[in-house]
Amino acid sequence: MKALYERIMKDGRSLGNGILKMDRFLNHQIDPELMMQAAQELVSRFALNKRINKILTVEASGIAPAILVGYRMKLPVVFGKKARPSTMGDSYCAVVRSFTKQHDSTIYVSREYLGEQDHVLFIDDVLAFGEAGLGIVELCRQAGAKIEGMGFLVEKAFEHGRQALEDAGIAQIESLAVIESLDALSCW
Amino acid sequence: MKALYERIMKDGRSLGNGILKMDRFLNHQIDPELMMQAAQELVSRFALNKRINKILTVEASGIAPAILVGYRMKLPVVFGKKARPSTMGDSYCAVVRSFTKQHDSTIYVSREYLGEQDHVLFIDDVLAFGEAGLGIVELCRQAGAKIEGMGFLVEKAFEHGRQALEDAGIAQIESLAVIESLDALSCW
Repeated sequence: MKALYERIMKDGRSLGNGILKMDRFLNHQIDPELMMQAAQELVSRFALNKRINKILTVEASGIAPAILVGYRMKLPVVFGKKARPSTMGDSYCAVVRSFTKQHDSTIYVSREYLGEQDHVLFIDDVLAFGEAGLGIVELCRQAGAKIEGMGFLVEKAFEHGRQALEDAGIAQIESLAVIESLDALSCW
Repeated sequence: MKALYERIMKDGRSLGNGILKMDRFLNHQIDPELMMQAAQELVSRFALNKRINKILTVEASGIAPAILVGYRMKLPVVFGKKARPSTMGDSYCAVVRSFTKQHDSTIYVSREYLGEQDHVLFIDDVLAFGEAGLGIVELCRQAGAKIEGMGFLVEKAFEHGRQALEDAGIAQIESLAVIESLDALSCW
């Protein structure tokens, strides 16, 4: 997606060790117009799959693209929580490693909102090592839900998350901007 | 907002001790169509204030309404983070008490995305005791930013957050559904 590539070139920053900082427009400050364009593009890429009946994401930076995809597809959006509220009933949970934050976290989804009837499209801002996606695979396995596909705004191809997700059986994986290397980006 | 009141009556659950569970449509599973209607109503209530140049919220359940308000107002959205990423530069921070979760958390906003030039509209899903709003007041005080108003989908009037925010100097506070008591709601 041209506008997204251009924005990454303009406002993305390489911090070394494969870290691509995109907090000017993607995951701290958000450009809602760019985010809506990206959501529409993701919707178009999954438009032929009429089985999808639920959008799944994980907090926090997946929520903005997921809600816009859900709005355009007229489907409910469920976001996995990184802490289990005392008010949550029975839940599914999975451990997710964050390479950026260098720690594991557990994500929770209430059993009320994921089940055998669900055909899930997982949406997230960045595909890196694929760890969040693998957490979703585990949650959906517990719930008996089927994952129809996964859509990301930015894919850091050099971290090979796509292969990990394909190995886990994900049939359709879409990324709107595939970054092969951070060499061309500003380092400041 | 009629549709929101009706949804609360239909799908909200009173869990006792003032806890109103709205995770079927608001803050775990989200109904994007209802959320967009709510965002448009919030936009209309602040439409006369032409100074607003930034939408501020806090993760995680504030992000969905904030991104939709930001999209409609064509303004950048910044969300306060509950953990400080290692990649974040200098930041403002404020402690926020969560009565539901019974613990304090710290929210962080990068100095890059909040400053003296900013006229902020704070958006969140629920106004209860006003603690998140008071955290935003503190962040904006540190940044020298002006808060123009605060908009919420649901206000639990019996927890008196509005008074706390008025006492902190917030001139315009809007809530789309004001709940005076949980007595009329299902308890299950």
